[in-house]
Amino acid sequence: MIEESEALEKVLTSTPLPVERDIPVSESVGRFLVRDARSKTNLPQVCQSSVDGYAVKVSKCRENLSRLRVIGQSVAGVECDACIEHGEAFRVFTGSELPMGANAVIKQEDVKVLSDRLILIKKKAELNDYVRRVGEVLTKGQRISNKGSCVKSSTLGSLIAGGISEVKVGSFPSIGIITTGDELIHEEQKQIKCHQTYDSNGLMLKAAAVKVGVEKIEIKRTRDDLGEISAEVLKMEQWADIIIVVGGMSVGERDFSKVALKECGVKQIFWRVRIRPGKPIFYGKFGESCQIFGLPGNAVSAFVCFHLFVLPAMRLRSGASADGVKLDQMKAIAGSSFKNSDNRPHYVHGKFREGKFHSIGNQNSNNLLALSQADSLLRLDERSSIQFGDLVTVFRLID
Amino acid sequence: MIEESEALEKVLTSTPLPVERDIPVSESVGRFLVRDARSKTNLPQVCQSSVDGYAVKVSKCRENLSRLRVIGQSVAGVECDACIEHGEAFRVFTGSELPMGANAVIKQEDVKVLSDRLILIKKKAELNDYVRRVGEVLTKGQRISNKGSCVKSSTLGSLIAGGISEVKVGSFPSIGIITTGDELIHEEQKQIKCHQTYDSNGLMLKAAAVKVGVEKIEIKRTRDDLGEISAEVLKMEQWADIIIVVGGMSVGERDFSKVALKECGVKQIFWRVRIRPGKPIFYGKFGESCQIFGLPGNAVSAFVCFHLFVLPAMRLRSGASADGVKLDQMKAIAGSSFKNSDNRPHYVHGKFREGKFHSIGNQNSNNLLALSQADSLLRLDERSSIQFGDLVTVFRLID
Repeated sequence: MIEESEALEKVLTSTPLPVERDIPVSESVGRFLVRDARSKTNLPQVCQSSVDGYAVKVSKCRENLSRLRVIGQSVAGVECDACIEHGEAFRVFTGSELPMGANAVIKQEDVKVLSDRLILIKKKAELNDYVRRVGEVLTKGQRISNKGSCVKSSTLGSLIAGGISEVKVGSFPSIGIITTGDELIHEEQKQIKCHQTYDSNGLMLKAAAVKVGVEKIEIKRTRDDLGEISAEVLKMEQWADIIIVVGGMSVGERDFSKVALKECGVKQIFWRVRIRPGKPIFYGKFGESCQIFGLPGNAVSAFVCFHLFVLPAMRLRSGASADGVKLDQMKAIAGSSFKNSDNRPHYVHGKFREGKFHSIGNQNSNNLLALSQADSLLRLDERSSIQFGDLVTVFRLID
Repeated sequence: MIEESEALEKVLTSTPLPVERDIPVSESVGRFLVRDARSKTNLPQVCQSSVDGYAVKVSKCRENLSRLRVIGQSVAGVECDACIEHGEAFRVFTGSELPMGANAVIKQEDVKVLSDRLILIKKKAELNDYVRRVGEVLTKGQRISNKGSCVKSSTLGSLIAGGISEVKVGSFPSIGIITTGDELIHEEQKQIKCHQTYDSNGLMLKAAAVKVGVEKIEIKRTRDDLGEISAEVLKMEQWADIIIVVGGMSVGERDFSKVALKECGVKQIFWRVRIRPGKPIFYGKFGESCQIFGLPGNAVSAFVCFHLFVLPAMRLRSGASADGVKLDQMKAIAGSSFKNSDNRPHYVHGKFREGKFHSIGNQNSNNLLALSQADSLLRLDERSSIQFGDLVTVFRLID
């Protein structure tokens, strides 16, 4: 049995480097950049007005002129090759290129239009008023996003504005899920016998993995049968980057998964981690690239182990930085007191409501109903307690 | 100009009811239930063992027997129609059905196997030890998820385990986005002229909307041209549930969008909301069903307005409960002091790191680079301040 931190370290250090690929920037949301993304252009590329008004030339040594001749206009999206002098003004709009010589814009609210060609300035203009300088938003070559960061919708905005049409990202892993158990039946089967159970782990883990990002994902169900499990693992090893085997990870007479993995030639890296739930988790590798996780069959254990160990591996091989592989954290106020008298750290599942973290129902590892309402995990160290009202850090579960 | 809360209220009360549809439960993640989901089965359906061990019959009035005859075994997934009496035991495994008469399980660690047919009990068993009672996890008819709640990966687990193969959910809306501006060019265009800008708003909003959930989504780009904008709006109105027009929402000579919407026959519900950024936001309707949002063209304003007004409408018409349409909240510690001396509430964009909220760069509404690093919004009331170290509520931006 090893410590949780050591287990995670072993997972991360044995995770292969991301396979890089170029994709259109419009398809990059949710992916991790494997190169810094730098702007290819200045934004704006020319001096622009940030309001509707009049471009003017101001100078400290000259008296402010109150009447100006309007000698032309510039609109957004059209080049402006005019030039203005003192005493002249140019009609401009938000985003218009300023004419040469202009160094300030007066808002139209501060101007009285005397005629088509003449305006009266009601408010003194200062140098650079309402001027968007070249490269003010983005400078050519400026880093927009770091290598290892995740592209979000809002990141997309600046990548596109910076003229980036393709980005280099990590490929998402292909994932095979094997759920084991003689009692398991497919969710679409209408008739269930009293000794059977619908297999919920497979689709639950698939849904979470899809949210994290997968290239391909498949679920196979096997009976509690050494040969059947081994055969499925060997088939999946042909295409999967990560194989998740659910159930049969203990040492009972009817626990075949761990033996099956050994017989297939999986190299064990660890088995059993000092946490609750999830102690019987197994991790190993097939050759250099394929990672194998054996998760306990209880739904809560499987889901928690997925978050603690599989998700970081998925993110890392998708190109995330070391920081970015972790679960999302947030602060919360403990909605009740929590006590862990066990000698293993305990992950309590619960929900975050109006700033407070509340645990849900009993924390049995087969309490699916409680898990279904959970959106976060609170980690309780071994032999520790948290008081009602304490400020705590909680981890967000994948929606 | 109206208040933010009034504006949101107007959006929500004018949002059509969700269009209901039945979908396979496996495709329901991210969707909102429009009916309570209730378990169709007991889980477990029969009394089961929760460990590997021996099922026994215990009784208070009898002395505890230390030697028991093993009269059979029961494995998970196979019906058990045996019956045991005092003095007898039945080999069982995790998930095995218990034989009739059995009312406790002794863990195999607490048993010494004397022969194939005889065991020695090392530890006294109590009634119901390691027994999973019928319906302990889910009871037939029990509510698993409320109407209006979002199906998450973890919810999927209990829906499937409860024998639910189809769920009734709200349809996602179809969304049309129109970005306006003579200066805008498509992100894939390699050559950009100095007075042009890549259109980043379209794809940024599309990416965020896709994350929230859409049936169909399209972006059209138009010039600053009344006729062109109107024509596009009228075309989109044929299929879109929500139309988002970006840019041209002010009253300048070159602001055509609002006029175009009026000319198309859009009924204005509000225009201008007392917030920063995003004041010029427009909201209206086309007939009973089609909702039209006019967002300011500055990236930050557009993105903030999308979160404050469009996202709640999208979620509501997808079936979310009134509570569920809001932005996700979390607690944070203010990473610096914030002051809003303006007479409008201010949404500060920033990032949440290690429990602290930090604003990013200047808060200009065209500061795309700052927005690209933001993951959350802090709302500062008008004429208010927040001190470094204060516990604050922040709103999560769509990734």
